[in-house]
Amino acid sequence: MGDTPETAANSSSALEKLRQLIQQHDAHPDLALPTERELAERFAVGRREIRRALDVLEEEGRIWRKQGKGTYVGPAAPVQPLALQDLPQQSNLVEVMEARLQLEPGLARLAAIRASKEQIALMQRLQERMNHLSLSDGDEHELWDSAFHRAIAEAAGNRLMLGLFDAVDAVRREPAWQHLRVQARTPARLDNYDDHHHRLVKHIAARQPAEAATAMREHLLALQQALIEAINFGDEEPL
Amino acid sequence: MGDTPETAANSSSALEKLRQLIQQHDAHPDLALPTERELAERFAVGRREIRRALDVLEEEGRIWRKQGKGTYVGPAAPVQPLALQDLPQQSNLVEVMEARLQLEPGLARLAAIRASKEQIALMQRLQERMNHLSLSDGDEHELWDSAFHRAIAEAAGNRLMLGLFDAVDAVRREPAWQHLRVQARTPARLDNYDDHHHRLVKHIAARQPAEAATAMREHLLALQQALIEAINFGDEEPL
Repeated sequence: MGDTPETAANSSSALEKLRQLIQQHDAHPDLALPTERELAERFAVGRREIRRALDVLEEEGRIWRKQGKGTYVGPAAPVQPLALQDLPQQSNLVEVMEARLQLEPGLARLAAIRASKEQIALMQRLQERMNHLSLSDGDEHELWDSAFHRAIAEAAGNRLMLGLFDAVDAVRREPAWQHLRVQARTPARLDNYDDHHHRLVKHIAARQPAEAATAMREHLLALQQALIEAINFGDEEPL
Repeated sequence: MGDTPETAANSSSALEKLRQLIQQHDAHPDLALPTERELAERFAVGRREIRRALDVLEEEGRIWRKQGKGTYVGPAAPVQPLALQDLPQQSNLVEVMEARLQLEPGLARLAAIRASKEQIALMQRLQERMNHLSLSDGDEHELWDSAFHRAIAEAAGNRLMLGLFDAVDAVRREPAWQHLRVQARTPARLDNYDDHHHRLVKHIAARQPAEAATAMREHLLALQQALIEAINFGDEEPL
């Protein structure tokens, strides 16, 4: 095949660096980007890799090349990825709920296959504890609830996905969102959630991956619905 | 409710910091952890929040408290989350495929609802380009394929999930994995993938979220299967 596995930097990594460069250039759209030769030196990749990555950016409409003049930024700015350490500052609770709905049913599915007996016993203990918490103490609920969901993520046995779970959980944990989460937490809903947690552990312990994923999805959809109502109606009774 | 939304640090954030501290303590299991008072000062949270977080860790079996002696680490070490910037160093291709299967069908589903016409036109152009690449050039394939999948992730309109996508893509991009990916790429499979990509864009353009998610899942399952065969059989024909 045309490329060697030993290449330290390929076109894909050149593309990632160019995306960052374009982002910095956004404030100065009239300035040309460095030449291909300068870019190749700066990123320590070949000129062929630079040209290929520029092809992609041109196709995406994010740069345009002017014969004899150079390469310019625009018209379409890329949606920049969040630097992952900045997630808590730049994301929000609505994005969190969507991301949890994508991640956590899959984690529950994997946990049903991979959880050790010890890990299942831990989930059972955490779930038991949540039954006995005082209704009025939001901080304590968040704490045990987060530990419960993390026990499932850990039992799924994929460190990459545990890393993603923690990144999402860090946004959820932001104190600024807490009053909405408190508002969404009514006694009837908490009873419901206890029931969901109980079913979740039951399916994981019975090694039922599809049922565990469904139980998690239903639980998260209920949480999402409660948050939407808290956002839209505040303390009022929802219609 | 018991907690104020203004609290800068709650029990959940104390728990996260304690998990990191335990990890550092792993090399010295006989040393007691700092006292609750010291921990409260160090993490700038209340002692109540520290005690609660320690309760969780004790329930998880990760610390034990000895009357009058202090708090010790053990016996069960927590599975540490990956520091997200370390993901490419610490994860692997098998974890990547699992994570992609969790993330990307959901991204395709959201893209079918949220993609602008401009974003759909971009997907079509990228997919078109992939049809005309030389079979022998792995680097170029990776480049356009990654741009295509990222266009879908971007069109899903959730910056948190785009951040997760980029984190996973950074692992995939590691040059050390490239020879396996090259090995898995046969002419027949590439034809197949072109077909998958075509169907994906068609469903997104037709605003069919369930079909788009299914098309993405089938595409990723085929990729996963090809990688498993490359891992297990190398250049031989699979049985």
